[in-house]
Amino acid sequence: MVNKRKVAVLGATGMMGQKFVQLLAHHPWFEVSAVAASDKNVGKEYASSIGSRKEANLPDELGELVLTEPKPQALDAPDLAFSALPAEVAGPVEEDFARAGMPVFSNASSHRMDTYVPLLNPNPNCTTAILTLSLKPLQDNFGLETVIVSSMQAVSGAGYPGVASLDIMQNVIPFIRNEEEKVEHETNKILGTITKPAGVTVSASCNRVPTLHGHMEAVFAKTRSTATPKEIVESMREFKGIPQQLKLPSAPEHPIVVREEEDRPQTRLDVDEGNGMTVTVGRVRRDPALAGVKYMALGHNLIRGGAGCSILNAELFLAKKLIK
Amino acid sequence: MVNKRKVAVLGATGMMGQKFVQLLAHHPWFEVSAVAASDKNVGKEYASSIGSRKEANLPDELGELVLTEPKPQALDAPDLAFSALPAEVAGPVEEDFARAGMPVFSNASSHRMDTYVPLLNPNPNCTTAILTLSLKPLQDNFGLETVIVSSMQAVSGAGYPGVASLDIMQNVIPFIRNEEEKVEHETNKILGTITKPAGVTVSASCNRVPTLHGHMEAVFAKTRSTATPKEIVESMREFKGIPQQLKLPSAPEHPIVVREEEDRPQTRLDVDEGNGMTVTVGRVRRDPALAGVKYMALGHNLIRGGAGCSILNAELFLAKKLIK
Amino acid sequence: MVNKRKVAVLGATGMMGQKFVQLLAHHPWFEVSAVAASDKNVGKEYASSIGSRKEANLPDELGELVLTEPKPQALDAPDLAFSALPAEVAGPVEEDFARAGMPVFSNASSHRMDTYVPLLNPNPNCTTAILTLSLKPLQDNFGLETVIVSSMQAVSGAGYPGVASLDIMQNVIPFIRNEEEKVEHETNKILGTITKPAGVTVSASCNRVPTLHGHMEAVFAKTRSTATPKEIVESMREFKGIPQQLKLPSAPEHPIVVREEEDRPQTRLDVDEGNGMTVTVGRVRRDPALAGVKYMALGHNLIRGGAGCSILNAELFLAKKLIK
Amino acid sequence: MVNKRKVAVLGATGMMGQKFVQLLAHHPWFEVSAVAASDKNVGKEYASSIGSRKEANLPDELGELVLTEPKPQALDAPDLAFSALPAEVAGPVEEDFARAGMPVFSNASSHRMDTYVPLLNPNPNCTTAILTLSLKPLQDNFGLETVIVSSMQAVSGAGYPGVASLDIMQNVIPFIRNEEEKVEHETNKILGTITKPAGVTVSASCNRVPTLHGHMEAVFAKTRSTATPKEIVESMREFKGIPQQLKLPSAPEHPIVVREEEDRPQTRLDVDEGNGMTVTVGRVRRDPALAGVKYMALGHNLIRGGAGCSILNAELFLAKKLIK
Repeated sequence: MVNKRKVAVLGATGMMGQKFVQLLAHHPWFEVSAVAASDKNVGKEYASSIGSRKEANLPDELGELVLTEPKPQALDAPDLAFSALPAEVAGPVEEDFARAGMPVFSNASSHRMDTYVPLLNPNPNCTTAILTLSLKPLQDNFGLETVIVSSMQAVSGAGYPGVASLDIMQNVIPFIRNEEEKVEHETNKILGTITKPAGVTVSASCNRVPTLHGHMEAVFAKTRSTATPKEIVESMREFKGIPQQLKLPSAPEHPIVVREEEDRPQTRLDVDEGNGMTVTVGRVRRDPALAGVKYMALGHNLIRGGAGCSILNAELFLAKKLIK
Repeated sequence: MVNKRKVAVLGATGMMGQKFVQLLAHHPWFEVSAVAASDKNVGKEYASSIGSRKEANLPDELGELVLTEPKPQALDAPDLAFSALPAEVAGPVEEDFARAGMPVFSNASSHRMDTYVPLLNPNPNCTTAILTLSLKPLQDNFGLETVIVSSMQAVSGAGYPGVASLDIMQNVIPFIRNEEEKVEHETNKILGTITKPAGVTVSASCNRVPTLHGHMEAVFAKTRSTATPKEIVESMREFKGIPQQLKLPSAPEHPIVVREEEDRPQTRLDVDEGNGMTVTVGRVRRDPALAGVKYMALGHNLIRGGAGCSILNAELFLAKKLIK
Repeated sequence: MVNKRKVAVLGATGMMGQKFVQLLAHHPWFEVSAVAASDKNVGKEYASSIGSRKEANLPDELGELVLTEPKPQALDAPDLAFSALPAEVAGPVEEDFARAGMPVFSNASSHRMDTYVPLLNPNPNCTTAILTLSLKPLQDNFGLETVIVSSMQAVSGAGYPGVASLDIMQNVIPFIRNEEEKVEHETNKILGTITKPAGVTVSASCNRVPTLHGHMEAVFAKTRSTATPKEIVESMREFKGIPQQLKLPSAPEHPIVVREEEDRPQTRLDVDEGNGMTVTVGRVRRDPALAGVKYMALGHNLIRGGAGCSILNAELFLAKKLIK
Repeated sequence: MVNKRKVAVLGATGMMGQKFVQLLAHHPWFEVSAVAASDKNVGKEYASSIGSRKEANLPDELGELVLTEPKPQALDAPDLAFSALPAEVAGPVEEDFARAGMPVFSNASSHRMDTYVPLLNPNPNCTTAILTLSLKPLQDNFGLETVIVSSMQAVSGAGYPGVASLDIMQNVIPFIRNEEEKVEHETNKILGTITKPAGVTVSASCNRVPTLHGHMEAVFAKTRSTATPKEIVESMREFKGIPQQLKLPSAPEHPIVVREEEDRPQTRLDVDEGNGMTVTVGRVRRDPALAGVKYMALGHNLIRGGAGCSILNAELFLAKKLIK
C-alpha cells in the first residue's frame, strides 16, 4: 500500500480527537489530510487551538493543518473519516458524510444501536469494548449465559474538561450517565450477529475512580457449558481475531494477555500493554455465586476502547475490500 | 452510669488504635486508662510516640499516658480492653487478656472464626461489616440466597504505613490478601446464628482504589422471596438494630441511610454520615443477572468497619449485662 | 445580641457561597434570610439547586429558601450581604447593594483595589489572606523589607467546576491567572494603611497542586531590623489581632499556630486548625539568600482565605459599630 | 564501538536500580552483565525478585540474570558499575569496587561531598541535578549571585516503598530530610570547579507533593551582571554541554527546552521531554525581590536526576578516555 489513504479527523480538538491524530501520525496506511471541529476554533491552526493541553509530540505538518467545519464539502475529499465528535452533534454530521459517500468510523454513541449502516461504522462504548474482547473466547468456546460486571473507570473516559477535580479527588462516583445501559445492550449486539443479539443476560455497575486512563472491570461470568478457570485462561490465550489473522497494522499480537501474578492487572502498570490495544486479564478463578468464573479485565479506554478500535475497524474494512 | 469503665487500648499507636483513642476521648461510659503497644515505643509518652502522624486533637491527659506492654499484668486492671493489634501478634496476646478474666473487644482477624469465645469478641473485617449491615434487612425480610460484591476500598484499610504511594497513585490494585475469603466466610457467620451459618452463597472481588477513607461496595443480591427495589429500600429504612432500641451511645439514629440521588453515595461526601457509624446506600435497582436487586453501599472502614463497631459491641455487652 | 442580623448570601450556589451558608448556619449574630444567585436556578429551592454537590448537613430551613436574583429590591431588606459572586459579575451587583445602603462583605476581586469604599468591604485573595496573617507580626515587630513566596494551592481555590481532573491529577500547574499580581499588590495594601501601602517588595510564584483544600506557602522574608528565627516564632505566637481582643465569634483563639515538628504544617493534617480560621506555621529557620528567615504557612483557602474572613470582617464592623 | 562494555548494576531491585536496567537495556555502548542487591533476593532470578512492581518490558535475557551480592569478587569482572544502592550501604560497597579498580558511577549520596575520587563518580541529588542544569547558562553568561528555590517533588524521589499513601494523598509535606542541605551545598560544588565552589548563595525549601514522577522547582535568581528575561531565555536555549558536543548516546539534543506557553512546564505533560533527560523551563519573568529573574524548571527525578545522569557520566568518561 504505497499510496496512503487520506483521512479526516472530525472532532479533532477533544481528548479522543487528539488521540486519533496521535495514533494516525505515523500510520502505514493512513495520513491525516484534514482536521475538523464543530467549535469556535474553525480557521485556526490545529496546534494552537489545542494549546497547552497538547500531550504528545505532534508532528509539525499535522500541527499546521487549519481546522475546518465538519462538513463533507468543507474538506478536500478524504478517502474516509474518523469521528470523535461529541454525541450531541455527531448524529446528523456523520449522516452527511455517509450520504456524501464517505465512510465514517465513529466513536460517538449516536448510531451505535442502528441495525445496519453500511458506510457508518460505530465503535462500541469504551467499557463495552474492553469487556466484550475478554468475553469473546468464552462465548466462542463455551457459550455465555450471564455476565455481571462492576467497573472502575478512569476520568479520561468523560472527555475534556469532563470530570471536575473537586468531584473525583478522594472519591468514587458510582454513577456514569447511560453507561450501564450501554454496556448491557451493546455487549449483546457485539457478541451476537448483525441480525441477532447474543442473548446474554448482562448486569453492570459503572463507577468512576480517581485514575487518569484505563478502565478496570471486575467480571463474573456463567458459561453454558462448564469451564474451569484453567480452560477459560487457555481460551483467552489462544484467542486470535481476524485483525491478528490479517496482521492489520493496529492489531496487537495478543489481543488478550492473561497474567499469572496474584495482583495483576493493575491500571497504571498494564494500561499500555500492546500499545494500548491489548486487554489484560488476571485473577481468573471460580465464582461460587454464578457457578462460573470471575476475573479482572483492564483496557485503555481511549485506545482499545476508542480511537485505536476505530482505526482497527477501518483497517479491517480496507483489508476486506469493504471500502476502497 | 456515673463511674466510667476504665478501658485499655492495645495497639494504640497504629491507625486503628488512634481511631479507638479518638472515639473514646469523650465517651460517656468509657475512659482510656491505659495504652499499650507491642513495639519499641513502650515507656514513651503516647503523644510523642505517634508523633507527626497525630491527626486529631488528642486531649492532653491521653497524650500524656505512658505506653505499656500489651500484657494483662502490665496494666492497672482495666475493666475491659479494646484491641487494634496487628493480626500476627493479636492471637496469643488477646488470649492472655481473656484468660486473665478481662473482656477483649478486638479488630484483629485472629479469633474471628473461633466458634464461641465468651470473653473475646472479635469484630468483623471492615468490608464485611459494611456489607452485612446493608444485607441484614434483606435477610430478615426476604431471606438471602446469593450475594455478589465488588469492593472499592480505601488505603487506610491497610493500616499505616500500609500501601505505598507508588503502588496506588493513578492505580487500581485488584487484590487484597485474604480479603475475599474473609468477606465470603464472615458474611455467613454474621448473618447466621452462633451455631449455624446463614447459608448464603457469597462471591467477592476486592479492589484497592486511591481514596483515603471509606469502602464503597457494588452489591448484587438475590433474595429467597421476591422483593422489588422499593420494598428493599423500605426494609433498609425501617431497619433498627438492638443498638438503636437500647439507644447505645455509639449507635447512629439510622444504621442505614438510603439516598435518592442518582449519583450517591459518594465516598468523600458520605463517609462520615452518622459520625462514621452509618452505612449509606444508593442506586437500589433491579438486577437482571441474579433476578434480584443491585445497589451501592458505603461505610467508614475505620469506624463502622473498625473501632466504632468494637466500641458499640462493648456498649451492647454492658447494656445487656454480659460483662460488668 | 438577642436579635440576629438578617443576612443575604449572594452567589450562594457556588463552592464559596455554600461555605458562607455552612459557616452562617449556626452563627450567634447572623441568620441567613436570603440566598441569591445570578444563574438559571432563580426560583428554585436552594437545596435542590446545589443538588448532589451538597457537602455538609445543611439545616432544613436554609435548604428550603428560594433562590432570588442578586438585586437589592429582590430581597426582603437584609441588614447586610455577603458576596461570593464570581468576579465577572460581582462588580456592578455589589455596587447596586452598596448604593442601596446595604453593607456588602465580598470575596470577589472586583473592588479589592478601590482606594476607599465605605459600604463595600472586599476580602483579600485567599493566598494573600494566609500570607499576610503570617507576615503581620513580622511587620509589626521588625518591619518587612522583602518577601518571596512560592505557593502550593488546592483546587477548591478555583471554584466549582474549576480545575478539570485531567489537568491536575499527577500534575503541578505553575500558573494561576492574575494570582501572582494579586499577592504582590494586595499584600502591600493589607500590611499598609488605607492611605499608604506598606512598601514591601513582594515576589510570588503561584502553583496549583493536587490537593482539595488548603493553600501551603513557602515564605522567604527579610525584615528591616534583624530577627532570629526564635524571635520570629515568639512574635507569631504572641500575635493577637483586634478580633481576638474583641472575642469575635469567628475569631480563633490563636490566629497563628507555630508547630515545632520538623515536618509540619501539612495540608491535610492542619488545614482545619481553629475551625479553618488559623494559619499554621512551621519550619521557621534562617534564610541565607535574603539574610532573613524562611518558613512554611498553611491556611484554609475557603475559610481563612474566603468566607470565614468575610464573616469575621462583618463581625468586626458590627462590634466597632461601623455598621448597624 | 562494536564491543559493548559489560556493566554491573548495584542495587538493581529498587526503583532507581530498575530505571538503570531499563535505560541500559538497549544502550549502544553498554550491556548489563550483572545485577546485584544487598538484600534477601541474592540467588534469585532478577525478574521474579522485582515481581509485580516490574513496570516496563524487561528483556528476557536481563530478567533471567541471577542476583549476586554487591561485592567485586562476586561479579564476573564487569568493565564498570552503576550504583543505585541506598545511602546507608553505598559508602563501603562503592569503595570496595573503586579499590578493586572498577569505576563506579553512583546515585548514592555517600561520596558526593568527597573532594576528589578518581574512580568513584557520584551523581548529584535529583533536585540539584535539575536545578543546576537550568542555572548553568546563567552562571556561564552572567555570573550567579543568589538563588532561592522552592521545590515540588514527586514521591518516586523517595524510592520504594518510600512515601506511604496515607502520608501524601491530599497532602503537601514541607520537609524532606537533608534535601535542602544537599541542594544548597551541591549546587555550589557543581557550578564551581573541582577545587573551588561557585560562591553562590543558595536557599532551598523542599516539598513533597502528590505526583508520581517529576520534580518541579520555582526558582528565583540574581545574576552578577544584569540580564533581562529575554536574555536569560536565549542563554538557556543556546546552551550546549559537552555531552551535546560529543553527541553522547544519552545526551538529549536540547538539554534545556524553554516553553512559551504561560502555563508550562507541567509535571505530567513535560516530565518525559528528551526521554527524561531534558529540563523544561517556563515562565521566565522579572523578579522584583532579588532584582533578578524567576522561572519554573522541571525534570525527571529518576532519569535526568538519577540513572540517566549517571549513564551520561559514564558515557562522558569513556568518550574522554578517562576510563577504558
